[in-house]
Amino acid sequence: MRDLMAITARPEVISLAGGLPDTATFPPRTFAAQMTKIAQESSAQALQYGPTEGFEETKDCILEVMGAEGMLPDPDDVLVTTGGQQAIDLVAKSLIDPGDVVVCEAPTYPGAVPVFCSYEAEVIQVATDEDGMRVDELEALLERLRGEGRRPKFIYSIPTFQNPGGMTLSLERRRRLVELARHHEVLIAEDNPYGLLRYGGEPLPPLYHLDGGDYVIYLGTFSKILSPGIRLGWAVAPPPVMEKMVLGKQAADLCTSTLTQYFVREYFAERRWLEYVGSLIDIYRARRNAMVEALERFFPPDASWTVPEGGLFVWATLPPYIDTTDLLAKALREDVAFVPGAAAFIDGSSGSHSMRLNFSASDEDVLREGVRRIGRVIDEQMTLFQTITGEHPVPRPPAHADEEAEQAPNVLPLRRRAEG
Amino acid sequence: MRDLMAITARPEVISLAGGLPDTATFPPRTFAAQMTKIAQESSAQALQYGPTEGFEETKDCILEVMGAEGMLPDPDDVLVTTGGQQAIDLVAKSLIDPGDVVVCEAPTYPGAVPVFCSYEAEVIQVATDEDGMRVDELEALLERLRGEGRRPKFIYSIPTFQNPGGMTLSLERRRRLVELARHHEVLIAEDNPYGLLRYGGEPLPPLYHLDGGDYVIYLGTFSKILSPGIRLGWAVAPPPVMEKMVLGKQAADLCTSTLTQYFVREYFAERRWLEYVGSLIDIYRARRNAMVEALERFFPPDASWTVPEGGLFVWATLPPYIDTTDLLAKALREDVAFVPGAAAFIDGSSGSHSMRLNFSASDEDVLREGVRRIGRVIDEQMTLFQTITGEHPVPRPPAHADEEAEQAPNVLPLRRRAEG
Repeated sequence: MRDLMAITARPEVISLAGGLPDTATFPPRTFAAQMTKIAQESSAQALQYGPTEGFEETKDCILEVMGAEGMLPDPDDVLVTTGGQQAIDLVAKSLIDPGDVVVCEAPTYPGAVPVFCSYEAEVIQVATDEDGMRVDELEALLERLRGEGRRPKFIYSIPTFQNPGGMTLSLERRRRLVELARHHEVLIAEDNPYGLLRYGGEPLPPLYHLDGGDYVIYLGTFSKILSPGIRLGWAVAPPPVMEKMVLGKQAADLCTSTLTQYFVREYFAERRWLEYVGSLIDIYRARRNAMVEALERFFPPDASWTVPEGGLFVWATLPPYIDTTDLLAKALREDVAFVPGAAAFIDGSSGSHSMRLNFSASDEDVLREGVRRIGRVIDEQMTLFQTITGEHPVPRPPAHADEEAEQAPNVLPLRRRAEG
Repeated sequence: MRDLMAITARPEVISLAGGLPDTATFPPRTFAAQMTKIAQESSAQALQYGPTEGFEETKDCILEVMGAEGMLPDPDDVLVTTGGQQAIDLVAKSLIDPGDVVVCEAPTYPGAVPVFCSYEAEVIQVATDEDGMRVDELEALLERLRGEGRRPKFIYSIPTFQNPGGMTLSLERRRRLVELARHHEVLIAEDNPYGLLRYGGEPLPPLYHLDGGDYVIYLGTFSKILSPGIRLGWAVAPPPVMEKMVLGKQAADLCTSTLTQYFVREYFAERRWLEYVGSLIDIYRARRNAMVEALERFFPPDASWTVPEGGLFVWATLPPYIDTTDLLAKALREDVAFVPGAAAFIDGSSGSHSMRLNFSASDEDVLREGVRRIGRVIDEQMTLFQTITGEHPVPRPPAHADEEAEQAPNVLPLRRRAEG
């Protein structure tokens, strides 16, 4: 992963690998104005240590963001963290004892599993489909574990615009998931970095909202709606968990950056943050559409992909004879990068013909070119396969299909499978 | 500790408890100018994710700071961290297996032991005197452990202007400590937040410099020479340890704030950082002297304290019938706070008549008033003791001793014991 990051930092490489928002969309004048204000009015405070839990003013901003998705937590239950990643780490650190079971989705955020494993959890993945986690399979798992006298420490879920899958947990499954947590007395860690970045369809209530915060620990971040460079995230947890998380936070880094908390405070004081999120939605929707159109045009007919209603990622699945980890090595020689699917599974074999593609960090032309390059490498692999086996892959559909795709409405169906 | 922080945040309370630098000394204009430059020239980059290891430009700044103390590490061995606390956490996370021995000084930084314990280390403290860690006792400990077939994972040491003790490890002991580490093949984690803040005496080489980086992991921070609110620290470690630390860093918070790294880069580009450290030295030296003078005036004659040649703390020891944890409760009623000594020991009984006093965060008048208030509470305790036991505490020396103290030179003797 480190090597991948180094390679994709080369300017000639089109990286669809990262999870980067487009920070060039943030107006530099706003940035400068806020920092000048901080320097003039509160330089000494902004450069000083802050409280471990975070400033009350930062929590006010967090409450606004959560309020925009219908949640209203008690500020005392909120912990300001050094980005969303630290929120995951502190939940894990506070809850996991060696040998504990942690349940997550298959696929799941590749950065979460190493955290759970570092505290020696046994990670079990539950399958997903186009409606998110298969909650029926989760139920069977919980029953099976109960039979063994075991109970997971928590269920880690990204219900909305999932990373890397792109799909969203349906309302019915959300309700059932929260019921199951209550029934089995299992905590849920709901990771929701993208909830406000919806490009189509109707908003769904977060698990935290449905549950009321008894069994759901909520993890949020300013990374995708403002800036990841400020490393500001948060966790909302009931008091017994929060107490442990605050101690963990103190040991981890004492407190979150005061300077970046002041930056967020000033930014929210302008009361234009939702306007900015609106502009991101317009930009990212166009990019998602461009990527999906490029996939229609350049990927083989027997490939499929999610068409996410929001977030940053498309999850594409290739014919089973193509291994995306091998494909990446070839793609890098064509100066294009993606995340191979295997990174999102713990068993090392699943997801080997899938890939995660990011559409938020590049403009439409670059996205098209990136997908074109990957498509070309796939074509080469398919030709090779055909040469070796004598089998004929499904032919590409006629050109007019591309024309149709360009007329696609903003609200696209959640999952498209090539008809070939 | 959380309650103490909350109480000391009340404006009427004089807190000598924290370890805060005086960030009001940093010129707001410099702050504003640097941020404007970042906004104009690199807003998008400053708001984006950065590499897990930190930016090369940040490492250049770190190399300058370490160079000022005679060290020249390989930039590849440097990891930029979210403050010095994260550097401690990542060393612990990378090295400690449950049951491992970690050696540290008695007293030691109260924020380090909970980290070591969170990874289930067995923490053993080695006594200190006015020349720092009793390296002869360390040697005996290492021999004893070797006899048991055990070897500490690492020795955590703050050799220069120790927190909380204020004392500095002598050159002879530094040499011997590094030899011992080599002989016993034990790593040292050298924590050096204050090394450049020297108010008197001659600089001593850091352990890292003496060892060359084979057995010494070096931990540094910008917190005390620039700002703790930016949460920027670093670790220097040999490659096998560094690899683990980078993975630990990725799991902990992905990367250190890009924005605050850009701030440091711009600040160092001005090439006035050593000038600013020079101004801090002048300010803190005067405050140290004011505190020491106030201690002479307001503390009982049978109290003693370190007179540190640098750093932020004085360590004061009261007559053995005064418990400083009890005293703190009374002091808080007089609106003054300090850190009770017991926090710096793991056995819960040592240090119970000592206290850590910070002199960097308050001006001279406030320091005098703070020490006066603590002195008054001590007097009350002594009177109470006398009433109960019939014993007479040592009387306060005559007033002219105070006058002498005000003439004290900048370079004060390392440890002063009242002659009474």
